[in-house]
Amino acid sequence: DAGKILDDISHRRFNPLRNSWVLVSPHRTKRPWQGQHEAPSKSTLPEYDAGCYLCPGNARAAGDSNPKYQSTFVFVNDYSAVKEEQQDYTAEVGGDEKSSFLLQAEAVKGICFVICFNPKHNLTLADLPSPSIISIIQTWTTIYRSHLPPTNPHYLPAPNTPTPTSQYSYMQIFENKGVAMGCSNPHPHGQIWTTTTLPEEPSLELLSMSTYRKKHNSCLLCDYVSTETEKRERIVFENALWLAVVPWWAIWPFEILLLSKPCKACLPQLGESEVSGLAEAISQITKRYDNLFETSFPYSMGIHQAPLDATEEQKLASHLHLHFYPPLLRSATVRKFLVGYEMLAEPQRDITPEQAAVRLRALSGVRCYRQAL
Amino acid sequence: DAGKILDDISHRRFNPLRNSWVLVSPHRTKRPWQGQHEAPSKSTLPEYDAGCYLCPGNARAAGDSNPKYQSTFVFVNDYSAVKEEQQDYTAEVGGDEKSSFLLQAEAVKGICFVICFNPKHNLTLADLPSPSIISIIQTWTTIYRSHLPPTNPHYLPAPNTPTPTSQYSYMQIFENKGVAMGCSNPHPHGQIWTTTTLPEEPSLELLSMSTYRKKHNSCLLCDYVSTETEKRERIVFENALWLAVVPWWAIWPFEILLLSKPCKACLPQLGESEVSGLAEAISQITKRYDNLFETSFPYSMGIHQAPLDATEEQKLASHLHLHFYPPLLRSATVRKFLVGYEMLAEPQRDITPEQAAVRLRALSGVRCYRQAL
Ligand SMILES: O=P(O)(O)O[C@H]1O[C@H](CO)[C@@H](O)[C@H](O)[C@H]1O
Ligand SMILES: O=P(O)(O)O[C@H]1O[C@H](CO)[C@@H](O)[C@H](O)[C@H]1O
Repeated sequence: DAGKILDDISHRRFNPLRNSWVLVSPHRTKRPWQGQHEAPSKSTLPEYDAGCYLCPGNARAAGDSNPKYQSTFVFVNDYSAVKEEQQDYTAEVGGDEKSSFLLQAEAVKGICFVICFNPKHNLTLADLPSPSIISIIQTWTTIYRSHLPPTNPHYLPAPNTPTPTSQYSYMQIFENKGVAMGCSNPHPHGQIWTTTTLPEEPSLELLSMSTYRKKHNSCLLCDYVSTETEKRERIVFENALWLAVVPWWAIWPFEILLLSKPCKACLPQLGESEVSGLAEAISQITKRYDNLFETSFPYSMGIHQAPLDATEEQKLASHLHLHFYPPLLRSATVRKFLVGYEMLAEPQRDITPEQAAVRLRALSGVRCYRQAL
Repeated sequence: DAGKILDDISHRRFNPLRNSWVLVSPHRTKRPWQGQHEAPSKSTLPEYDAGCYLCPGNARAAGDSNPKYQSTFVFVNDYSAVKEEQQDYTAEVGGDEKSSFLLQAEAVKGICFVICFNPKHNLTLADLPSPSIISIIQTWTTIYRSHLPPTNPHYLPAPNTPTPTSQYSYMQIFENKGVAMGCSNPHPHGQIWTTTTLPEEPSLELLSMSTYRKKHNSCLLCDYVSTETEKRERIVFENALWLAVVPWWAIWPFEILLLSKPCKACLPQLGESEVSGLAEAISQITKRYDNLFETSFPYSMGIHQAPLDATEEQKLASHLHLHFYPPLLRSATVRKFLVGYEMLAEPQRDITPEQAAVRLRALSGVRCYRQAL
């Protein structure tokens, strides 16, 4: 069948979510690797580190101190990429039409939050029990709700965060894990950047989803859930309400797309069982990742959902999902480099998504590998 | 003025070449760096390495031996990502309309060449004299010409390479340099991948350039050359025929766009003085890069030009240029990570392109830093 041929030949696959292509070269893992090896993650970390600016009670860079938090803890990043207050900027008008097109800029205001997932310095999402992951999802939801326009029925101010001074357009919730992903502190934490502009990636996805909805009168990701549930070739894990697949168009070797089965536009629309189902799925994915190469598996992970200031059309087009982008390819120390051809021509992957899914599916969702704590 | 305000505030800039945006956060370099450090490049390499599969006379992985080449040497990669011969594949027709849209694939045939830039194991482009760089450009041109359709006036079969068995659509010429860029062998070399499909990046660029041409009846990159030549804020180096700028929309901290001043669609259109001007520009850029952090500077570099099977419209839209994408941000060992927010939301940079251009422009184009050879 077609699937089997694609295991053996070079081909490209289409990503309908961002309207782009990826080159797949299944035979390419046969080449020997003589390049760089990643540093494996430090194997022993204390439960509390006096030098960590995220541990409870410790001092931070800008002088503040963390409270002795017990569950999650949110604060504004001391080195934020975007800020609430800055000098105004309006692009020069006049000038000639061509250079105004070629040198376009717009100001971006925003807030960057850091969210500590847990007081314990040496834990990761893969170590946390379900109630602790549920607390994280609830914290994400609280922050999202407090940044909605007050006219939105889900709007709810948050007790411990300052009232936003602008209406922001989008909130990107994400986690960088591991030194290979530029993460500078192993304390379990994520980030939330919210901006007055709708960033590139969610904007591309919304456009594709909205075009699909107009054409087929249905939701692209709902239809994708049905297709994957029927084919059963790329599923890593599923429960009643969530589906985790290595998507047809995955770029990273062990990339995962985690989709809500019911069509939900944003976090506040999740009911209690959907939240606990999401916690289970996150736990399953991160544990399988750690088990794959018996290492604390690096990745970037994030949530795509409806913009804060979504139009009716954007609300209809949105379908909440999480992307997991892990860099490792062959082992705990050999990663995939997206360089050269990938930067200049087209992303390229070395194993098929089906081969990656088989391996992740076969692994235990119970943590087998354990860092020496 | 506007330029000065943009030095201090977060903003996003538009990339008219690929129709996308980048977030710029100039104040962000103030944060302390506690993350991963790159391994600095090995400081002593021999002129000849008996274990290197690229050195003259040595054996390669698949059993062949390299000739005792004196200048450049081209061969087909022993672990090619695409191949000339493979099983045929045609997507299933029938099936339902939605899943055929969601699970699209097409076969890709092609050839991957490796091009050794020089017999000496321990040199890089920054070390080579102008005539040696001219030989490399001539080799690129020869390979490009031999893959054009025989009806193209620039077509010329190459004496030492096999006749292609398909008409290929695009030829991506590139170099990955340094372990930080996934390069597994320090021997000076580049790659050439040619495919039956037009890859994502050149396809996006051609679309933008063709749309611009229809709207303004002029070439986007010619107009960009004029704009940058007038503003003089982002120029790194120029000679009579070439302009090197940190583009307005650069993503990587010290990214460079190298443009031909006269509008040339592809390598065979370059005259003798354009080829030597290009060699000078490549030499200037790579030397300044090495001088910046006093290290052998890693990067991916590549050429965008007209597709091999270009339509008349695509030929008119094309304007030959080179992209240099280097990962380093602060020093020889601290790179920029494009992770988390960048993967999920929007590319983000920490210094402005103008600040990067000032530093690169001020550096010597004579090699000051030297690896101990
Ligand atoms: O072909 P190489 O140098 O072994 O491999 C390198 O360049 C390729 C093309 O940019 C990438 O696909 C690989 O991930 C990278 O490691
Ligand atoms: O904010 P951090 O964790 O210091 O920094 C890390 O994540 C950011 C957001 O993905 C990136 O822009 C940085 O390049 C990366 O090092």
